[in-house]
Amino acid sequence: MAKKIDVTELILRDAHQSVMATRLGIEDMIPVCGDLDKAGFWSVECWGGATFDSCIRFLNEDPWERLRTFRKLMPNTRLQMLLRGQNLLGYRHYEDHVVDRFVEKAAENGIDVFRIFDALNDIRNLERAIAAVKRTGKHAQGAISYTVSPLHTIQGFVDTAKKMKERGCDSICIKDMAALLKPQPAYDLVKGIKDACGQDTRVQVHVHATTGVTMVSLMKAIEAGADGVDTAISALSLGPGHNPTESFVEMLEGTGYTADIDSELLLKIKKYFLGIRNNYKEYLSNITGVETEIFKSQIPGGMLSNMESQLKQQKADDRVDEVLEEVPRVRKDSGYPPLVTPSSQIVGTQAVFNVLMGKYKVLTGEFADLMLGYYGETIGPRDPEVIELAAKHAKKEPITCRPADLLKPEWDTLKAEALALPGCNGSDEDVLTVAMFPKVAPKFFTTRDKGPLNLGKESASKPAAPAVDTGKGPVRMEMSYNVKLNGNSHRVTVTPA
Amino acid sequence: MAKKIDVTELILRDAHQSVMATRLGIEDMIPVCGDLDKAGFWSVECWGGATFDSCIRFLNEDPWERLRTFRKLMPNTRLQMLLRGQNLLGYRHYEDHVVDRFVEKAAENGIDVFRIFDALNDIRNLERAIAAVKRTGKHAQGAISYTVSPLHTIQGFVDTAKKMKERGCDSICIKDMAALLKPQPAYDLVKGIKDACGQDTRVQVHVHATTGVTMVSLMKAIEAGADGVDTAISALSLGPGHNPTESFVEMLEGTGYTADIDSELLLKIKKYFLGIRNNYKEYLSNITGVETEIFKSQIPGGMLSNMESQLKQQKADDRVDEVLEEVPRVRKDSGYPPLVTPSSQIVGTQAVFNVLMGKYKVLTGEFADLMLGYYGETIGPRDPEVIELAAKHAKKEPITCRPADLLKPEWDTLKAEALALPGCNGSDEDVLTVAMFPKVAPKFFTTRDKGPLNLGKESASKPAAPAVDTGKGPVRMEMSYNVKLNGNSHRVTVTPA
Repeated sequence: MAKKIDVTELILRDAHQSVMATRLGIEDMIPVCGDLDKAGFWSVECWGGATFDSCIRFLNEDPWERLRTFRKLMPNTRLQMLLRGQNLLGYRHYEDHVVDRFVEKAAENGIDVFRIFDALNDIRNLERAIAAVKRTGKHAQGAISYTVSPLHTIQGFVDTAKKMKERGCDSICIKDMAALLKPQPAYDLVKGIKDACGQDTRVQVHVHATTGVTMVSLMKAIEAGADGVDTAISALSLGPGHNPTESFVEMLEGTGYTADIDSELLLKIKKYFLGIRNNYKEYLSNITGVETEIFKSQIPGGMLSNMESQLKQQKADDRVDEVLEEVPRVRKDSGYPPLVTPSSQIVGTQAVFNVLMGKYKVLTGEFADLMLGYYGETIGPRDPEVIELAAKHAKKEPITCRPADLLKPEWDTLKAEALALPGCNGSDEDVLTVAMFPKVAPKFFTTRDKGPLNLGKESASKPAAPAVDTGKGPVRMEMSYNVKLNGNSHRVTVTPA
Repeated sequence: MAKKIDVTELILRDAHQSVMATRLGIEDMIPVCGDLDKAGFWSVECWGGATFDSCIRFLNEDPWERLRTFRKLMPNTRLQMLLRGQNLLGYRHYEDHVVDRFVEKAAENGIDVFRIFDALNDIRNLERAIAAVKRTGKHAQGAISYTVSPLHTIQGFVDTAKKMKERGCDSICIKDMAALLKPQPAYDLVKGIKDACGQDTRVQVHVHATTGVTMVSLMKAIEAGADGVDTAISALSLGPGHNPTESFVEMLEGTGYTADIDSELLLKIKKYFLGIRNNYKEYLSNITGVETEIFKSQIPGGMLSNMESQLKQQKADDRVDEVLEEVPRVRKDSGYPPLVTPSSQIVGTQAVFNVLMGKYKVLTGEFADLMLGYYGETIGPRDPEVIELAAKHAKKEPITCRPADLLKPEWDTLKAEALALPGCNGSDEDVLTVAMFPKVAPKFFTTRDKGPLNLGKESASKPAAPAVDTGKGPVRMEMSYNVKLNGNSHRVTVTPA
């Protein structure tokens, strides 16, 4: 008997987020949900921060209603979401009761599997969310943010997995968002987790395809005992996306492992999305090949284009090499955070500032917070001199406690703010929408009545325009900087266009 | 010490043949040869039937001169070519002395490694070429055409490898042109060959990337003992092409294997080809994702579009499903040939004829030849009734001997024909050019003086036009059909436009 490998299908969340700028609307998802439900997936990932954001920012679509639609159309498949630990779907730490409420509401509206991660792998930023999920009786999956640095070791990641298991996680996910996980480390890491946490500990592997090596990493992870993998139907796969589901299913033939997925349905789903994909041409990533440069530079593609764009705005395009050399130094000074959202933006922007204005002459508010411990604990020690500068800049003391411990109860305030907004329907879901995206939700509430947009149809009906690489746009999240020049402080906020 | 895995770089032959319609001209190759020579490849594949054809058909470029240029610019790297056994670079069997002369001249002009294959894996079609290579002192590599059918087994392929070894081959290549080789069979096949032929038998693995599984197959092949693999610099990789060289090099880290290739040079070469690639947009394959349908249908993508095009010409588009069901039957009747050029065209066209005109009511000349043994021996028995029809149709008896045994010496005739052509320079190379492509060479000789064209530059200077998928065009080789209708026989010849 071949061992069954569970497959989590990503097409409704991370796949279109990675290759189609998160623009896929519910109208184009509905016709395929029935087939997704029948294909035999362990779970379908369908909800997360960027899709939530895109719903209210671009698609005039209520993300909670989207979730309820999935629940109705996919009654037989686990629905899965990605949760940023104490940040939930936003970019700041929320007070514990907001975390509880969010998890309750997500479970109530349909989520079965909560994949929970923290950019710094600080277990304290995951604890409350894990406990909240356990209370709902749903599946809590702890996700390790995989990265490569002089301090990150297999043993270190295994220790993180052990802590997740101890906190009650039902499974462990290795989350490799930059396609850095090579075959041998994949094998060693899965084996390490199984050996340390018990062979019955469920291990799931999430990899992107960007570097062209990770399909092999999935195979080696499986040989080491991995129980599940993440893939995406081929129509929205590869490039900055993921390995194709159909290829994964086929590759296992004869190996002693099987995915047990209905290939006929996969083909049908693929053909459906190939048709849809055509409509979204202007949002498609123009990266279809592989990028292996990251193995040397350690700088993800999105972060690179981010920094290049910042330099261009300052008419300093010619200094990109200096910035590329500055990034590893800033990363070292800040204790080697994994370079993922938001830490990649924080480190990258600070590197740009260092080059343009002198080393740590100007600190962003976010970088100061990172240095002072307000994002949590980093794997390595942070540079004491830079901590001192950060404290002076931010007028805050460094902390070592769990960042959320400093927060006061905020649910009542958030609720009052939300209820005061025109178009708010008074539900806890609406309060949470405002809490997650306070700048975007108010406008959405006033237009919600008009119903969801289908950007694919809109786009397909427009005359051909030159493709824009929206997936790699310069700004992918709202960020604010305090810039102090000649003694005057300026607060600058940058949002996705 | 990690075991070194040899890498054959395909960018100058199969890579641009597969993803850029074989249009890459020498002017765009010259600047990069120095870096290719220094990167550390075991060999650079740079010559073959399609590139030879494209040189004289589209690029006004002397393929022999191209080879000499490579030799001069890459003095430290083995130059490799693909040879179709007794067919050399053409589509018919050549008499033995032509085979000898061709191999001598190819070696003399610069080829170090001859990869020799036969579409039917009939060892008799390889023997003369192998012996000729051995006489030149160059490397003779026997290539097994990998396919999947009810009769093809690991043991059968291993037996073919043993025969190749016995005939004097210096190494064995598993040639998987349709990306059908899954990881487990890759492992079993390499292990089988090593066990049967000796662990010191050099085994090379050539796979395409089309189905998305073969990077894993390369890893498993290496674990089974493979000594070398074929890859292509990422700028011209994936889709119908091959796995990216850079990814292959990276994926081995920590595995106990190493490719020992200069990554900095790979990046430089990649960037060079990314620039060049832009110029050839109109020739680029529009397939960038994966296609796994072939695992079920057994029908390669190129063959499918071929048949669809034939049906369209006959206004019978609606009968494609019937044809798809007919293909396996025709393949069975003809003894399960691997579906590669030319057998894929032969079987596909006959399936179309069967559906449109009734089962074996009309036979193509090529299909009759295949049934009668004029292409060599098939792995399975051929249907006696269809053989009888073929004999009647072609007015020829079935044969069991080596097809080339029936040929009379032809060098003097070929030479006389060539010398009579305006513009022929009288060299044996020119005679061989005419022998390979008698329909194309005469025109080329008259324009050769004008020097090579650079279709990239031409194309880049033209206003944007809609992309055409030339890589999957309906006709990829010249073929003639004898069509008999109402007692009248018509000879129809189809050539690439």
